[in-house]
Amino acid sequence: MTVIDEIKNRSVPVDNAIDTLLPVKNPPGLYEASRHIVKAGGKRLRPAVLLAANEAVGGNPDKAVSAAVAVELMHTFTLVHDDIMDNDPVRRGLPAVHTIWGEAGGILAGDTLYSKAVEIITESDAEPKQLLKAANILVKTCVEVCEGQWLDIDFENRDSVFKEEYLEMIEKKTAVLFGAAAQIGAVLGCADEKTGQALYDFGRLTGLGFQIYDDVLDLTTPSEILGKRQGSDIVEGKRTLLMIHALEHGAKPKAFGKGDATPEEIQEAIDVLTKSGSLDYVKNLAVSYVEEGKSKLDILPDSNAKKVLLDIADYMLYRNF
Amino acid sequence: MTVIDEIKNRSVPVDNAIDTLLPVKNPPGLYEASRHIVKAGGKRLRPAVLLAANEAVGGNPDKAVSAAVAVELMHTFTLVHDDIMDNDPVRRGLPAVHTIWGEAGGILAGDTLYSKAVEIITESDAEPKQLLKAANILVKTCVEVCEGQWLDIDFENRDSVFKEEYLEMIEKKTAVLFGAAAQIGAVLGCADEKTGQALYDFGRLTGLGFQIYDDVLDLTTPSEILGKRQGSDIVEGKRTLLMIHALEHGAKPKAFGKGDATPEEIQEAIDVLTKSGSLDYVKNLAVSYVEEGKSKLDILPDSNAKKVLLDIADYMLYRNF
Repeated sequence: MTVIDEIKNRSVPVDNAIDTLLPVKNPPGLYEASRHIVKAGGKRLRPAVLLAANEAVGGNPDKAVSAAVAVELMHTFTLVHDDIMDNDPVRRGLPAVHTIWGEAGGILAGDTLYSKAVEIITESDAEPKQLLKAANILVKTCVEVCEGQWLDIDFENRDSVFKEEYLEMIEKKTAVLFGAAAQIGAVLGCADEKTGQALYDFGRLTGLGFQIYDDVLDLTTPSEILGKRQGSDIVEGKRTLLMIHALEHGAKPKAFGKGDATPEEIQEAIDVLTKSGSLDYVKNLAVSYVEEGKSKLDILPDSNAKKVLLDIADYMLYRNF
Repeated sequence: MTVIDEIKNRSVPVDNAIDTLLPVKNPPGLYEASRHIVKAGGKRLRPAVLLAANEAVGGNPDKAVSAAVAVELMHTFTLVHDDIMDNDPVRRGLPAVHTIWGEAGGILAGDTLYSKAVEIITESDAEPKQLLKAANILVKTCVEVCEGQWLDIDFENRDSVFKEEYLEMIEKKTAVLFGAAAQIGAVLGCADEKTGQALYDFGRLTGLGFQIYDDVLDLTTPSEILGKRQGSDIVEGKRTLLMIHALEHGAKPKAFGKGDATPEEIQEAIDVLTKSGSLDYVKNLAVSYVEEGKSKLDILPDSNAKKVLLDIADYMLYRNF
């Protein structure tokens, strides 16, 4: 089975459970706004990581589905609030929540998703000790995600950002939730502390690779596959790791911060960033994080689930959107 | 000791614990924004209810202080997000968070406060089973608070609101968090299910009285005591229970929805709403909820803590701001 099939197989029970665990209640508008982006798809990568981690430590994945839903809802909550903060009108090919239900609606939908996420974890089928730990991991992670988003906004107002600062930002904003997903899967599978930590590191490091590689995909993937405009980060003048490296090496594509770009200008950007070694630098760094993440799984006995986790780690790089 | 002293005594350990449990970390701006309204005071009524409920069931209040902080942070989170949604520039006499750190800052500060609230509960000093229950109560309550705020916003766009709808809205937006505070105190004090439920009902019912009585205070308390403009609900055209009753009885003060009012017009509003029986109606309803709430404490043996809870219930009405 391909890794995409493995991810998809795990998304089926998660999608079914979302309908049970986040039904439309009163007031219906609040629940429709809350379900809008959840139901719009998404790869369900984080739930897949949670469920595979759970299987890999010998857990009963049926009992971990609720926690997988919780992690997906928590992820969606951050998307809904981020879209308000970043004034992004589109998410997963649909109008962002705040463009339909207003800012207040977006804020409340996000708050509801987050609350439901923790509620669902605390009502899962496991021992109180494990559920308490799982809930604690989820909310501690959310504090870090807030820190990461704060840094991201802060960087937009600064003239320069150091590589280390950027890495701290994406670690908090993106990577730790992959870590949390893997660790929660392990905790609910009754893994010991050391194994839980290894799974957390696996998720965090591969999540870093995932986010770093996003810079490459953004520039090199055609819009119709990417689902958003090719090169949008460059055009918007974002200081991604790719551009931090480029600017440090005196390379500046014409399209950078231009607000718009022709296909020729996007190609020029690819050429400039290839020549400066920036694309290679970012690709290699992403690969090295993913490889370091994969090595953390040496603690686990061989199993199909372990193979799935390793394949998901590779997929972080081989995906094209 | 007066009830104000009893509340104040319980606020001291809570305020000390806030500094330990919500320190300024990196990025400092996020934590300063998160602490802004928490540190601006507030009566700490909900923490006092939690701690007194804990004492009343024979708990060790030292172990319940963290949970009391959690409930206060959760309350503050709702204030910070509400101020963005309602575009309110002032809170507790200070500029609202979003007026200083922007909307994004306000959203993130709220999300952080909420996350820290649950984190603090899950890391408290009690058995996992009790902490899990306490965390579950807190986040389920937050879902209801979101529902209540959604209804509140919805009502602003409607021509008429029924009394039952208004009561459902304030029950969710305000009363349930008092219920949660009392129940969490009971749960952490190892009270049985029935006692926990009685404490929840005590908090919920007195919380209803508290919020209903707010309409009276808003109109009849001079601005310098109230901390905001006297009669602001009337002037802003809010459909509070007071106005729902008045409009149902054909009474409409000149100041209603006028945007501004002279002291004479405020006095006219008081006269009109006295004559229509609306002020009496609201006062009596508030009293009846508080009395019903107090009766729920019959389940508890007599103690100083029980007396404090009963006094706090009365204070919900005798307070003047």
